[in-house]
Amino acid sequence: MKLYDAGRAPNPRRVRIFLAEKGITIPLVAIDMAKMEHKSADFTAKNPVQRIPALELDDGTVISESVAICRYFEETHPEPALFGKSAKERAVIEMWNRRVELGLFNSVATAFRHSHPFMAEMEKPQIPAWAEANRDKAIDNMRMLDEQLSRHRFVTGETYSIADITCQVAVDFMKLPKLSIPDDCINLIRWHGLVSARPSASA
Amino acid sequence: MKLYDAGRAPNPRRVRIFLAEKGITIPLVAIDMAKMEHKSADFTAKNPVQRIPALELDDGTVISESVAICRYFEETHPEPALFGKSAKERAVIEMWNRRVELGLFNSVATAFRHSHPFMAEMEKPQIPAWAEANRDKAIDNMRMLDEQLSRHRFVTGETYSIADITCQVAVDFMKLPKLSIPDDCINLIRWHGLVSARPSASA
Repeated sequence: MKLYDAGRAPNPRRVRIFLAEKGITIPLVAIDMAKMEHKSADFTAKNPVQRIPALELDDGTVISESVAICRYFEETHPEPALFGKSAKERAVIEMWNRRVELGLFNSVATAFRHSHPFMAEMEKPQIPAWAEANRDKAIDNMRMLDEQLSRHRFVTGETYSIADITCQVAVDFMKLPKLSIPDDCINLIRWHGLVSARPSASA
Repeated sequence: MKLYDAGRAPNPRRVRIFLAEKGITIPLVAIDMAKMEHKSADFTAKNPVQRIPALELDDGTVISESVAICRYFEETHPEPALFGKSAKERAVIEMWNRRVELGLFNSVATAFRHSHPFMAEMEKPQIPAWAEANRDKAIDNMRMLDEQLSRHRFVTGETYSIADITCQVAVDFMKLPKLSIPDDCINLIRWHGLVSARPSASA
């Protein structure tokens, strides 16, 4: 088993934090996205959507999509549970992980992809007006999360979950499109300190 | 238990098809999105991201996000399995469901949201250039799916799954942004006939 990984990009980091929280170590294979190695014929044969991370199982099956990879490890290494422990808890965590992913995470990534010179080759056409609209969406999403975190220790409640990982990676990735948490989002700031202090934050 | 539903929109239909495939019947509560009922204070209290569908459990817990709702019913009604039967199968189905959702489904929805007069109030600002870019992405995604379906009966392999539902809803929704399957995508056309012939297609 091996994981195709790519340094600082947010999706590979989601999986690395998840593995660190589970205490799982597996061999990493570095793919250099700046050199377009994820578009190579070899890698495309493994993952036709040409994205990192991707997990190759011992039988040759390749699992791409960060959350699919995390879910696989949740089943093979159930403790600590990061997707919930009952049908209801798992539905609530899936809901929040998607709210964060389709909301804040996606807004931040879009603001970056459609404005940063580094992405000019990968995102064609870059549309500055769409980057700008997503900066506003990112702020709205942070306010929604701040409200949730005013009532709960973590994103989905009192227990740390994959939704916290998705949110942490999104917040840390805001540096690239030069976004930051609004000063009055004190609950989100408190939560960010909490997850940043976990040993997995360095993954 | 009740499901907040909204007629022709694609996400509510995903859940209705899923329930039909499972043989589950639950009370539906119609929310009129044209009248902005999903933005009302009452509904916002139930779902702060103001989207349909949402499932309200008997204890008052509200689960939003179509896939979170489907996953809940997969656990309470395991047969027929629509998310897979083993850790590996579940990871592969999660991967394909996400590829279709973040790929074709998202491209079609974006082409619609950023071009159709009906969405002028809901998607501000509408960006025609972004709608146009997503028409191209939709075509690329259909070619990727056509290749997969050249080797398999269904999206994830030989068994029908939630990824087929996501793909079916995306293809049927293409009418609104006036997209269609390219004539040479014969495998995708064959598959679309297959899923459209299932009784659940009318859900």
